Amino acid sequence: MSESIIYIGNKRVMSYVLMAVMYFQRGDQRVVFKARGRAISKAVDAATILTSRFLPDADVTEVKIGSEKMGEEGNERFVSTIEITVEKHQTV
Amino acid sequence: MSESIIYIGNKRVMSYVLMAVMYFQRGDQRVVFKARGRAISKAVDAATILTSRFLPDADVTEVKIGSEKMGEEGNERFVSTIEITVEKHQTV
Repeated sequence: MSESIIYIGNKRVMSYVLMAVMYFQRGDQRVVFKARGRAISKAVDAATILTSRFLPDADVTEVKIGSEKMGEEGNERFVSTIEITVEKHQTV
Repeated sequence: MSESIIYIGNKRVMSYVLMAVMYFQRGDQRVVFKARGRAISKAVDAATILTSRFLPDADVTEVKIGSEKMGEEGNERFVSTIEITVEKHQTV
């Protein structure tokens, strides 16, 4: 099953929504939005806008949260992460 | 099973973490963090700090995202939401 990963950064939320629409149009069955820190809210926005307004035949199938160590040794800090999987319904 | 809901707002993240610790200490088996919009990132922070540093015997067992209509008729907008469930491991 072909899937793409979209990293959420500083662009506007619609950029990420349209990127996902494009990936699905070219044949991907699954798109994963990944974000850290403050971008987490934007990842949730992107996934809900995508499934509610643009791709009614796709659903959020998994949401994982966690944390990642950032920075150099002696100056590490943890940042929260999210991974949101959106999948197209299986068509028979 | 007793559970508590913690709504994430403008307080510092540690306030919500400690609130959850308190609820578990008084006997709750499950705490659900709920947040909307920009507070979503803080909810993820609270859940990961809680389970990684304060309650090693608890896990994130469910993460749900969605959206809610806000505002009055004619002036509605949608805001993203998250619900993060943290549960204590079953002890035998």
